[in-house]
Amino acid sequence: MLTRIDHIGIACFDLDKTVEFYRATYGFEVFHSEINEEQGVREAMLKINETSDGGASYLQLLEPTREDSTVAKWLAKNGEGVHHIAFGTADVDADAADIKGKGVRVLYDEPRRGSMGSRITFLHPKDCHGVLTELVTSAAAESSGH
Amino acid sequence: MLTRIDHIGIACFDLDKTVEFYRATYGFEVFHSEINEEQGVREAMLKINETSDGGASYLQLLEPTREDSTVAKWLAKNGEGVHHIAFGTADVDADAADIKGKGVRVLYDEPRRGSMGSRITFLHPKDCHGVLTELVTSAAAESSGH
Repeated sequence: MLTRIDHIGIACFDLDKTVEFYRATYGFEVFHSEINEEQGVREAMLKINETSDGGASYLQLLEPTREDSTVAKWLAKNGEGVHHIAFGTADVDADAADIKGKGVRVLYDEPRRGSMGSRITFLHPKDCHGVLTELVTSAAAESSGH
Repeated sequence: MLTRIDHIGIACFDLDKTVEFYRATYGFEVFHSEINEEQGVREAMLKINETSDGGASYLQLLEPTREDSTVAKWLAKNGEGVHHIAFGTADVDADAADIKGKGVRVLYDEPRRGSMGSRITFLHPKDCHGVLTELVTSAAAESSGH
């Protein structure tokens, strides 16, 4: 069951400048940053609030690390902006299987590693009214077994 | 101060079909629906979680009610997808003034009426790394004076 807006993924050309924009304009601070080589992105997570399911909602700022990454291709086509949205769940495997069973294309056969040790998958935007949609189980939810 | 992700605004061609997609796929239910004649939209709010500032996070599904609305023009150019993101604040007037003072264009001289009796304004996407950004003070926050 999807129980929170986990994050909004925002693609940008220059991560440092975009982080500085969010800090200077709104006071949002970087909670975590990492490079995800598999996804081809450098990213910063800005924690905005905590959520009623025990998790939190973040902005995820994404800068591509290579020209052939999906985010680089998306930026070349669309320019900077909202790239995807993500819902949090205690069990990404079960939700992905359930949603696949309803005829929505799930992009990975098995969930992959996302930010902060989470496990993630994506749903095809053409099956989701134009919205690239991610499902996330946080590392905390994994380790607590719910 | 911006204290939550208030909502993600998603533009769609057919509100009823899109509401049904979110219900059937994820189990999200309509919390509130209304027509905003000023904005030229028919909308449905799906409540996803509550937030640590006493508010909540929603998906806001938007269908244009007339061809000359900004959402209709946006859909004609972009197709369905994420139209804007919104941050919640207890004082939209103060935050809009503060952000305007930092050189970000605020689209309204005074906040206007948003969903569920809220007061809202928008920041120019070109000043926000491509993201049309809304600031929201909910009716509940207005009436409690904080």
